[in-house]
Amino acid sequence: MNRIITIGREFGSGGRELGKRLSDFLGYAYYDKEIIEEIAKRTQLAESYVQQIVEQKAGVFFPITIGRTFQHVHHTVGSDFMLKQYTAVYTEQANVLREMANKSDCIIVGRCADYILKEHAPLRLFVYANMDSKVERCKKKALEQEDLSDKALRKKIKQVDKSRAQYYQYYTGQRWGDRTNYDLCVNTSSISVKECAEMLAQMLEKR
Amino acid sequence: MNRIITIGREFGSGGRELGKRLSDFLGYAYYDKEIIEEIAKRTQLAESYVQQIVEQKAGVFFPITIGRTFQHVHHTVGSDFMLKQYTAVYTEQANVLREMANKSDCIIVGRCADYILKEHAPLRLFVYANMDSKVERCKKKALEQEDLSDKALRKKIKQVDKSRAQYYQYYTGQRWGDRTNYDLCVNTSSISVKECAEMLAQMLEKR
Repeated sequence: MNRIITIGREFGSGGRELGKRLSDFLGYAYYDKEIIEEIAKRTQLAESYVQQIVEQKAGVFFPITIGRTFQHVHHTVGSDFMLKQYTAVYTEQANVLREMANKSDCIIVGRCADYILKEHAPLRLFVYANMDSKVERCKKKALEQEDLSDKALRKKIKQVDKSRAQYYQYYTGQRWGDRTNYDLCVNTSSISVKECAEMLAQMLEKR
Repeated sequence: MNRIITIGREFGSGGRELGKRLSDFLGYAYYDKEIIEEIAKRTQLAESYVQQIVEQKAGVFFPITIGRTFQHVHHTVGSDFMLKQYTAVYTEQANVLREMANKSDCIIVGRCADYILKEHAPLRLFVYANMDSKVERCKKKALEQEDLSDKALRKKIKQVDKSRAQYYQYYTGQRWGDRTNYDLCVNTSSISVKECAEMLAQMLEKR
């Protein structure tokens, strides 16, 4: 069975950087844009739209799940249609992820991959950090034209993570960021992404 | 400043084994029984009694904290006296831990050390595991005469952890096991204690 690493992450905590570094160290495939391209091809939706959906930017409120029962609380005009399209994208995403996992060792950031690929027994990482260090990281990565204030960044970080939590809970029935769903949770405020990648690479090379 | 590692842990997840292994790898002091001896000397209480208090076996219900306000909900006969004794022990424990942290590099399991020693910027680990693997570990460690059933072990594990959570929350005002209070959380169902110790030792040797 191929070795799979999945990375759940808080926005601004360095999850993508960790994925790339691990990929460099271990030589596993790192999938990112390719997933979107493949979904777009299969669903016949535009790549930019798939991107929006996958990143939960299209403004759909996910029904809140209680246990395994779906309760539609936010019911806005058009939301049924949207939800169907979301679900179609999710389904194709799951297919694409499974095919990738069957092809070679790989690293996947986000996308409920820990849940979708659970039969592949992935190493499930969750990366988080305190707010100050997330704001700092976002500022370093920001393009010049999107020079947000600290306050605006904090707001954005909270919004993105709320959206990720809702998406994850909707499709997996599990609580996003709950340690019981992961093998290792790393606070990148204290352990640098570089250290974390080195440490994991050494461990995995020995396995 | 000396390097300090604190280990919070679910019962049966291998936190003590991790502490000992890290101590072997890194040559840091590992304090266990010495803490009890020292507290007993200072409080003039019997070692066995201090042990009971420190392990939260003496049956005191901790007042539930809401934010930083203490609300006494369980108010049993004698509990005020008990609570005073608990607090005396906690205070001496805190003194002993600080002295140890000032003496040399060290590793401390449990005892709210992550909170008490926060000015020493410890590396704060939390060790957890799924229930099956905790039951398995407890069985391996059990003495012959205490051959508990799986059901009884699960009950014991839950009780001990509930008690640890209450104790931790009472003295720190923080939620026990909440990832934001730790630098690294390791699931020993998937990453062995030995692997974890090696991985951390290598990382810390490079720092």
